[in-house]
Amino acid sequence: MMEETQPKISSGLEGIYIQESKICKVDGINGRLYYRGYSIETLNDNSDYEEVCYLLLYGRLPKKDEFEKFKSDLRNERTVSTEVMYLARSLSKKMHPTDVLKTAVSALASEDEELADNSPEANARKAVRLISKIATLAAAIERARNGKEPVAPDPSLSHTDNFMYMLTGSKPSSGQSKLINTMFILHAEHSSNASTFTTLVAGSTLADIYSSVTAGMAALKGPLHGGADEAALKMMMNIGDPGNTEQYIEDALAGKQKIMGFGHRVYKTYDPRARILRSYLEELRNDKDPETRRLIEIAIRAEKLMIDKLGNSKGIWPNVDFFSGPLYVWAGIPPELFTSIFAASRMVGWCAHLLEYWTNNRIFRPLEFYTGELDLKYVDIDKR
Amino acid sequence: MMEETQPKISSGLEGIYIQESKICKVDGINGRLYYRGYSIETLNDNSDYEEVCYLLLYGRLPKKDEFEKFKSDLRNERTVSTEVMYLARSLSKKMHPTDVLKTAVSALASEDEELADNSPEANARKAVRLISKIATLAAAIERARNGKEPVAPDPSLSHTDNFMYMLTGSKPSSGQSKLINTMFILHAEHSSNASTFTTLVAGSTLADIYSSVTAGMAALKGPLHGGADEAALKMMMNIGDPGNTEQYIEDALAGKQKIMGFGHRVYKTYDPRARILRSYLEELRNDKDPETRRLIEIAIRAEKLMIDKLGNSKGIWPNVDFFSGPLYVWAGIPPELFTSIFAASRMVGWCAHLLEYWTNNRIFRPLEFYTGELDLKYVDIDKR
Repeated sequence: MMEETQPKISSGLEGIYIQESKICKVDGINGRLYYRGYSIETLNDNSDYEEVCYLLLYGRLPKKDEFEKFKSDLRNERTVSTEVMYLARSLSKKMHPTDVLKTAVSALASEDEELADNSPEANARKAVRLISKIATLAAAIERARNGKEPVAPDPSLSHTDNFMYMLTGSKPSSGQSKLINTMFILHAEHSSNASTFTTLVAGSTLADIYSSVTAGMAALKGPLHGGADEAALKMMMNIGDPGNTEQYIEDALAGKQKIMGFGHRVYKTYDPRARILRSYLEELRNDKDPETRRLIEIAIRAEKLMIDKLGNSKGIWPNVDFFSGPLYVWAGIPPELFTSIFAASRMVGWCAHLLEYWTNNRIFRPLEFYTGELDLKYVDIDKR
Repeated sequence: MMEETQPKISSGLEGIYIQESKICKVDGINGRLYYRGYSIETLNDNSDYEEVCYLLLYGRLPKKDEFEKFKSDLRNERTVSTEVMYLARSLSKKMHPTDVLKTAVSALASEDEELADNSPEANARKAVRLISKIATLAAAIERARNGKEPVAPDPSLSHTDNFMYMLTGSKPSSGQSKLINTMFILHAEHSSNASTFTTLVAGSTLADIYSSVTAGMAALKGPLHGGADEAALKMMMNIGDPGNTEQYIEDALAGKQKIMGFGHRVYKTYDPRARILRSYLEELRNDKDPETRRLIEIAIRAEKLMIDKLGNSKGIWPNVDFFSGPLYVWAGIPPELFTSIFAASRMVGWCAHLLEYWTNNRIFRPLEFYTGELDLKYVDIDKR
């Protein structure tokens, strides 16, 4: 039999290349991240999330008329049917919002009249719907958890401003607007990480785009993937007083505890997304809100200690999840919503990857090496 | 930079081993399939689906008292909450039953009080719940599609008999009972195929078991994975008269059409599951139902021609999906339900794989080779 000699096991698929791609370059050595050839610093400084969506989906920046049409399409797709909204709101009573969001996105397929059309054009239209509606759902789910009715979208607002508006019922301040736009851009895409890879594996069976991204959202749920920002924030809240930071971290490290928000499978240097968020921390260090000041101080002290101890020596640096929490708190976003925002931001990355993969689709079918027995005899239950 | 030289691309992960496993051996050269060391022929002849579930989950056949407890646990978990049942039934009005089932399984997490307990024992209990409840949901969804109320489970019946009972409202005949038991056994597990692999990729983030199997179900939706049995049956229905079989197949092959239910990524010989189903066809060849006789005759004639043309010469043989359709039709199961039965049967395989993978978990994080540009300059929208 073919498999009698022990084959090489590619645990976690580390070092295995699944495809060529023109979407995203993660340069883990130099700490650089590019979407379609543009560095995230360039995009964060010059662009906005809606334009980044166009770029990721279509491979280039839009001309003016293309962008106007794209924005209008995105804004026209914000409404979710009463049935799916009801489902989302009723599940919110006893389920984590990320799980509700995944279930609701799965249900969204029921209202897409183009579901069966697998042409690239129809799939691109479905991607626009998904990007738009997941934000509506994420906001409505958070409001339902707090016993509040959904807020209807405002078509005069950008995707991210409207998200904040649907979440809070008020238009965001210019500071909130800038931050949430940055957050969505930084989380829009990150190559073949676990959720995107899950999306591709599901999609490689030619499952529809709703099913495929539902699979990706299932992966995002895991504490090793999404949720690190929430966990890092909880640690900062546990630390409580900035003066406790060093002792807390030292104790955690001595107890071999993992400090969430540090270290990354690909980045062996400072995560470029974390660097952008770090600059927000500096801006907000003297904010008028004492809770923000306190959390930011803890984050900055924890970062310094961790870099001294583990940065250069072990290649363990802050990643994007470490600084998100205090910034979200400042913007009025509760911890239970962090992973949903990640999902809403990443929807475009999942869709862009699916559209690309389907141009040259191959079903994923790796192997397992069987190490059990063979040809066992069936023994009657009384004689076992 | 590390990735400047073109790496080997493992398209579809063909030939890549992801782990050692003691669950399933697919011997594609000799056409043999083993669950935990027992051939599927042995299990189909001697065991039943409930015992196969125990075997797959726990790695060995149960002693009498263990099996009694396991069956009782399975039977006690058949009820689904009114909320999830309502969701499933209302989505059934405008969504494919497989998509409804996936959405409902995702929602089931809301009613599991042990959801946050990640111990192997709690996860094994959750697996029992999933195996049990997915059958209840699949039956109720099919009834809702036809405007019928759900049928409450009958605890005196085995898992598969009760499934038929919940589906039709009557206890199955001994012939139906034997066939549905075989179908569930043959679909219970098949190593790291696309849906099981998707389940593992999602689960490798330590996503909960409901999220992970939801991801697997998303993959099952794809026509390259689940759905081939439905497609093969539709072809037989299109052929219509057995006398048209050869001409239809010849024309399809001449037009380079793929004949669903033939060929397999792993089996390069007769699929052992198809062989078991083939023996049912012989038994039912002279059945009193003319539709059954007609479809079986078409299946047998199509098989003969395909083997003559493509079997030995190209290694394209019938797989399990080719013979399922006519047998399901005989048992009174509509085509739209085939993939849901696949999902209900395979739930145990997904769960067994998760439980095994989590004993030695590693997050899946393969690489993509970036072939796009870098450091593009941002050009103002008016100048593009």
